[in-house]
Amino acid sequence: MKRARIAYQGAIHHAVEAEGMLQLADGRRVREQDVVWLPPVQPRTAFALGLNYADHAAELAFTPPSEPLVFLKGPNTFVGHRGQTYRPADAAFMHYECELTVVIGRTARNVKEADAYAYVAGYTVANDYAIRDYLENYYRPNLRVKNRDHCTPIGPWLVDAKDVPDPMNLTLRTYVNGTLTQEGTTSDMVFSIPWLIAYLSSFMTLSEGDILLTGTPKGAVDVRPGDEVVTEIERVGRLVNTIVGD
Amino acid sequence: MKRARIAYQGAIHHAVEAEGMLQLADGRRVREQDVVWLPPVQPRTAFALGLNYADHAAELAFTPPSEPLVFLKGPNTFVGHRGQTYRPADAAFMHYECELTVVIGRTARNVKEADAYAYVAGYTVANDYAIRDYLENYYRPNLRVKNRDHCTPIGPWLVDAKDVPDPMNLTLRTYVNGTLTQEGTTSDMVFSIPWLIAYLSSFMTLSEGDILLTGTPKGAVDVRPGDEVVTEIERVGRLVNTIVGD
Repeated sequence: MKRARIAYQGAIHHAVEAEGMLQLADGRRVREQDVVWLPPVQPRTAFALGLNYADHAAELAFTPPSEPLVFLKGPNTFVGHRGQTYRPADAAFMHYECELTVVIGRTARNVKEADAYAYVAGYTVANDYAIRDYLENYYRPNLRVKNRDHCTPIGPWLVDAKDVPDPMNLTLRTYVNGTLTQEGTTSDMVFSIPWLIAYLSSFMTLSEGDILLTGTPKGAVDVRPGDEVVTEIERVGRLVNTIVGD
Repeated sequence: MKRARIAYQGAIHHAVEAEGMLQLADGRRVREQDVVWLPPVQPRTAFALGLNYADHAAELAFTPPSEPLVFLKGPNTFVGHRGQTYRPADAAFMHYECELTVVIGRTARNVKEADAYAYVAGYTVANDYAIRDYLENYYRPNLRVKNRDHCTPIGPWLVDAKDVPDPMNLTLRTYVNGTLTQEGTTSDMVFSIPWLIAYLSSFMTLSEGDILLTGTPKGAVDVRPGDEVVTEIERVGRLVNTIVGD
């Protein structure tokens, strides 16, 4: 099943996909163009991975890490499907990052890697934009790179885990104004989804609705105001975002 | 006024300090020893500073940063006054960090440094423990150092901003089992409170209840299970925590 969170006629609704329409809990079906898409989840904690695809690390001239590079993202960063993301006026290079996003389904602490998928509710797509200019800080990725207001579109759907039987073997693609600019597969992740859940839950509690953005493959391209950026993951969704000036 | 959040007789209450007692909203006064202290605020986003006192940076053999080293902390990390914090069995060095904590009072975006104090609700004390062993990661401070369950006691009180007229000139002290081990002053911060509010709000929205842990001066000492660690800030409070094994 595909689940969405939308604003419609003055209220926020949970909806599911039904024959190309959005079906509300009361059974009404509404058209996509009549709603505002919101992030499908509201995580207590949002984790994101840096350099979790070896080819992308090489592209940025980094050695792939021997331990996962995990950082947190604040709730201000997320924006729904068909939302807008700002490009800072003084930035020389802003790139998208198409990322498979894992949604945690129940409280997880000290989970074994072999049991980790039992803690996953489902998956969605995120586009974790980065402002490359600000990467020079000693500690990175820093907040100016990765925690700006609305810098991370997410959605459209939370797709149930049972509908994504092999999340470590999905194709990711990004299109800028209709042109394919990034293509990869989740099978190239350095640290796998179950390994990451085991790692994080070994020292902290993961809660229902928490999300884990698992990194992006190579194919970083600068995007500019007016660009439409589509990040797409097989079986999970096609997330549309537009860049605007700030 | 000093405000607390406590658990008492099966419910969570907001309370204020009244003649050494905790006064609930309905006027009842209860004794400190009869309640469980909770973190005084529940931030949407919790920010923390690394190396924001030059003497502490030198102690860790780092050059003070030219840009602030800000990272986020998840809600799992916080624990109230008189709570417990775990020391990992395999850690060789765990140190406390007494930190003045700023509580944001209202939505802040693009705030000027000169106006920044108008966005502050008040102050509390945090002890942002670090597991030094895990600092070797390329991106740091990483989650294993700074985002463990219950690794950050905070409280006891949210003290109103008007009762702390000069937050950039307060003495911080830490005592381990009654012995003074850390002493410094907020006047030694590299990046000041108003500067940090202006900086962060220049690219992201700060919300009411968000908190900013402003870093710690030198005086890092290893702490062990059984140790009572008291972090104290002039005018703001005296926060008690006990280290236990994990």
